[in-house]
Amino acid sequence: MDRKIIIDCDPGNDDAMAILMALSYNDIDIIAISCVEGNTVVKQCGINALRVLQAADRMDIPVFVGCDSPLLGERKSSSPYHGHDGLGNVPDPSAPDESFIQQEHAITALIRLSKQYQDDVHLVAIGPLTNVAMAIRMDSKFGTRFKSCNIMGGNYQGVGNVTPCGEFNFYFDPEAAYVVLNQLKCPITIVPWETCVQHAISFETHTKHRSFNTKKAKLMKAVDKHSVDHVLAKGHNNFIPADEALMACFLNSDVIKNSIHMYATVETKGEYTSGQMVIDWRKHLNKQANVTIVTDLDQTLYEQTMENALK
Amino acid sequence: MDRKIIIDCDPGNDDAMAILMALSYNDIDIIAISCVEGNTVVKQCGINALRVLQAADRMDIPVFVGCDSPLLGERKSSSPYHGHDGLGNVPDPSAPDESFIQQEHAITALIRLSKQYQDDVHLVAIGPLTNVAMAIRMDSKFGTRFKSCNIMGGNYQGVGNVTPCGEFNFYFDPEAAYVVLNQLKCPITIVPWETCVQHAISFETHTKHRSFNTKKAKLMKAVDKHSVDHVLAKGHNNFIPADEALMACFLNSDVIKNSIHMYATVETKGEYTSGQMVIDWRKHLNKQANVTIVTDLDQTLYEQTMENALK
Amino acid sequence: MDRKIIIDCDPGNDDAMAILMALSYNDIDIIAISCVEGNTVVKQCGINALRVLQAADRMDIPVFVGCDSPLLGERKSSSPYHGHDGLGNVPDPSAPDESFIQQEHAITALIRLSKQYQDDVHLVAIGPLTNVAMAIRMDSKFGTRFKSCNIMGGNYQGVGNVTPCGEFNFYFDPEAAYVVLNQLKCPITIVPWETCVQHAISFETHTKHRSFNTKKAKLMKAVDKHSVDHVLAKGHNNFIPADEALMACFLNSDVIKNSIHMYATVETKGEYTSGQMVIDWRKHLNKQANVTIVTDLDQTLYEQTMENALK
Amino acid sequence: MDRKIIIDCDPGNDDAMAILMALSYNDIDIIAISCVEGNTVVKQCGINALRVLQAADRMDIPVFVGCDSPLLGERKSSSPYHGHDGLGNVPDPSAPDESFIQQEHAITALIRLSKQYQDDVHLVAIGPLTNVAMAIRMDSKFGTRFKSCNIMGGNYQGVGNVTPCGEFNFYFDPEAAYVVLNQLKCPITIVPWETCVQHAISFETHTKHRSFNTKKAKLMKAVDKHSVDHVLAKGHNNFIPADEALMACFLNSDVIKNSIHMYATVETKGEYTSGQMVIDWRKHLNKQANVTIVTDLDQTLYEQTMENALK
Ligand SMILES: [Ca+2]
Ligand SMILES: [Ca+2]
Ligand SMILES: [Ca+2]
Ligand SMILES: [Ca+2]
Repeated sequence: MDRKIIIDCDPGNDDAMAILMALSYNDIDIIAISCVEGNTVVKQCGINALRVLQAADRMDIPVFVGCDSPLLGERKSSSPYHGHDGLGNVPDPSAPDESFIQQEHAITALIRLSKQYQDDVHLVAIGPLTNVAMAIRMDSKFGTRFKSCNIMGGNYQGVGNVTPCGEFNFYFDPEAAYVVLNQLKCPITIVPWETCVQHAISFETHTKHRSFNTKKAKLMKAVDKHSVDHVLAKGHNNFIPADEALMACFLNSDVIKNSIHMYATVETKGEYTSGQMVIDWRKHLNKQANVTIVTDLDQTLYEQTMENALK
Repeated sequence: MDRKIIIDCDPGNDDAMAILMALSYNDIDIIAISCVEGNTVVKQCGINALRVLQAADRMDIPVFVGCDSPLLGERKSSSPYHGHDGLGNVPDPSAPDESFIQQEHAITALIRLSKQYQDDVHLVAIGPLTNVAMAIRMDSKFGTRFKSCNIMGGNYQGVGNVTPCGEFNFYFDPEAAYVVLNQLKCPITIVPWETCVQHAISFETHTKHRSFNTKKAKLMKAVDKHSVDHVLAKGHNNFIPADEALMACFLNSDVIKNSIHMYATVETKGEYTSGQMVIDWRKHLNKQANVTIVTDLDQTLYEQTMENALK
Repeated sequence: MDRKIIIDCDPGNDDAMAILMALSYNDIDIIAISCVEGNTVVKQCGINALRVLQAADRMDIPVFVGCDSPLLGERKSSSPYHGHDGLGNVPDPSAPDESFIQQEHAITALIRLSKQYQDDVHLVAIGPLTNVAMAIRMDSKFGTRFKSCNIMGGNYQGVGNVTPCGEFNFYFDPEAAYVVLNQLKCPITIVPWETCVQHAISFETHTKHRSFNTKKAKLMKAVDKHSVDHVLAKGHNNFIPADEALMACFLNSDVIKNSIHMYATVETKGEYTSGQMVIDWRKHLNKQANVTIVTDLDQTLYEQTMENALK
Repeated sequence: MDRKIIIDCDPGNDDAMAILMALSYNDIDIIAISCVEGNTVVKQCGINALRVLQAADRMDIPVFVGCDSPLLGERKSSSPYHGHDGLGNVPDPSAPDESFIQQEHAITALIRLSKQYQDDVHLVAIGPLTNVAMAIRMDSKFGTRFKSCNIMGGNYQGVGNVTPCGEFNFYFDPEAAYVVLNQLKCPITIVPWETCVQHAISFETHTKHRSFNTKKAKLMKAVDKHSVDHVLAKGHNNFIPADEALMACFLNSDVIKNSIHMYATVETKGEYTSGQMVIDWRKHLNKQANVTIVTDLDQTLYEQTMENALK
């Protein structure tokens, strides 16, 4: 039986790649893509999602645009990693324009679809969690209608990528991450930043994946050049996929080699730790486990999942 | 020309009275009443609003129900002041039931109506600001469509009524108050808690207003008994209307004897000061004035406005 | 019988004036002056104290130097109000040099003197409270040995002078203010910032006080020029003494026209409210009253006290 | 040449063991032991230190008592792990009483000794950092006189032992830890909690070390029974030394198998993360490295160091 999913994202190169990965699975039915402000402004995220769908000849999938800033409304500047347009600053003149974006707001679409596909749909959230938190706040039962929610974000050893302890998705909207972890009420699986770092890929692998003669591979090759240059300029010797790791774990649970099941929440008040995921290792908080945190991946399977997406 | 208003509220005795005050003005056209969790659970707030409308024979005004908890989702317990049902624990068996509440969610209704009556409608917000903040977050231009927003909430001298520095409406959802003050983008007038305290009314006046032989006066007399008993038990020698003060200022600007025009924001991180309104008296923050804070009322006019509402 | 006092201060023009006020009272015996980082660096504060004592021919009073930064160690820049040297940038070549400062550290001196004059000495604290908090931390019984502690600092209506809600002395070291209010354990009287503002003096009065043909008046006239120019440049039409108000209240309790007796603490976590004094108006915190806050002064008596100091 | 050290501690079983480890090294000269509130009240910590010295026939080493609560003055309850007396609730009637504690306060002793042995003394800090922070605040140059400071405390992967993210020593006085890391200004080596956990010892090893026929081994066997019982009751299958790990690294640097050199600070504002050590992995804060964090130990050498201490 097909698995229905809604992807909430902020494309973003790694979101683009994650969408392509989902599209490469025959048993996955993407009901909708909802976009949120993050790697770039939300409308551009919507256009980027369309551009990915076009490359995969799947313009039938509806794309919705949601919140244009985090819950408290203060946008933090995005990392230069994805380019100002979120897709490596290589615009495609033949890309779909915003007229292809659905008129309905992502929040109401998310709530409507959660009811329409109740108990038969998964949420895959690979951007800041603003849209998801807003849906919860408008409809307390929103999360209960999903079979699972799968999140790329946060950290479990205090390692950040935009501040000392802040991973981008959670740091960008700590309050939303707090709401989602504590109030979503469906099984949550998280791939945190440290797991992504631990499972970086070599530049050889990265290049190999993007050398296929497909529209999809060509798109990813073009848009990733900016990130690769950025990473090389910093002297790093490998490439860290993020949303791809979460998507691989969702698509094929065999990719998950190890995980922990714990209560986790999000710090929203810290001076240095705002947006950090807080893991209650020793049950000091006396709360029920609410998340499964993926701590180790099967690297071979993981890389195959990415490779297959671009073939 | 009529003034169109939307009342966002959490009835609440003082909300009930404020609605009756608005209804007593011939030139006021209440487009909608939207309810928010606050003095009691949000659905009960909706039913309470209907009960007030019934007493005024104005069941034609649509009542919407919005968010059932503050932005971050943690409900703080309400004050015992209003009774557990928000209206003094004197249920009326002939009150309208929840079937009279509109199906549409208050947030989408607020946004829709802001467009329908663009530039010709005022917002009167006399509950926690969750609904208003949510509407802003879903639609950044929400606030720009209102001629004004009028808020009962916060404080300007650090005086709280539920914590040392926290007034109920702002303390109940500090993040929402923060969003509204900083991102609503229409003229905002606030009646803070200190102004309400300064303009308490005598029990004689309170009783007199509730002694008319009208359905409205009888309703207010019945539902206020709980609050009056509560206040007397604490040894206070007067009664402090709150939402009424804001409504009076809005209905008749002559009620405003003094006000200040300043930049104000809301503390969301403090240990003791969460929810406190922060006034930038000396322009340390170098921001444009965003609120007019009413600091003094014409007591006579104010009391007349209340009296007229129950005649 | 003489009243023995220790003055902990950060001169500072208003500290200078406050010291002169104390010296003008025959029944006041200044046991020691201890200095703390605040208006300028702590060693300069010590030299400034000596300069004041020299002008009053009281070089017999020992001056101690204490902490060179607040408890957490991060110096906030001082207001330009007092000049970079704390005394209006008019150095006196014949002023005493640092060799006249006592070798003993102010903290150990404070503790030693508190024991020597146990139950017979008052503390007058008119700078950031770092020294006092350190003395408490080294010796939990420190405060119990004083008949009273008299503090200029904080606010009771959320009005700041260096941030929206932060008065200089409390904001400069919020943690110290927190420690002192909660752990000093002797009667505390506070003159907060709002009371100082309410009892500003006219420039005429200011000039008149500084026109006497005394060394003291000449000193104050010289060092105050910088502040007066600063205030005039800002367009203010009066002059706000601060430490003088506290000293006047201590020297002559008739200066106090009104005060409140409450539990108060200090916010140390707020984003906007760090250093704000928190007043528990309605006993939400269920704590015993720990401070007397002076809210109104007898202006005539107050001004006489200042005038007499310079005659 | 002998290495002179001052041990600042809160004995505590693991402090006791760490002191014995230091005493077992012929080239180590313990100049002083200063005690701080932590595992138990500070005076009891002093008595406990004396009891350890008595067991090792080294009553010649002076023991000082310092601060009786953390910088901000609010004591957090100690873990039940060490017993209410800090040494497993097996009092020794023949233990030295408090008359053997030095009269001088630990803070002034620390400062005095830092001058006396300037550039020739190491600080080993295995309790909350209150005393050390106080010494810094009283004398900004305090830390510069030490060859090194060696700290057991904090964490580098967000793992706490008393709160989700709080290790006892840092959580007990986060502000002091903040001051020490940022303002001590001598080379700092830290053994964080995760490294201790990673290098737990088996109960067999624990028992073996305590089975020697020496006064020292008998003392440790007696006082550790309470902790062992506590750990067994929780179902743990090994025993986690903490202060011992730091002391082993200091005594024999070959015990350190791996370490990182980074900028680290301490969160003091977080709701869940107060006291967490914050590691600036990617130099987001643009600060110079200030700590060496030990991340791996040579287990064999480590255990030998402990064994030798009790022989
Ligand atoms: Ca993403
Ligand atoms: Ca209300
Ligand atoms: Ca001063
Ligand atoms: Ca210890």
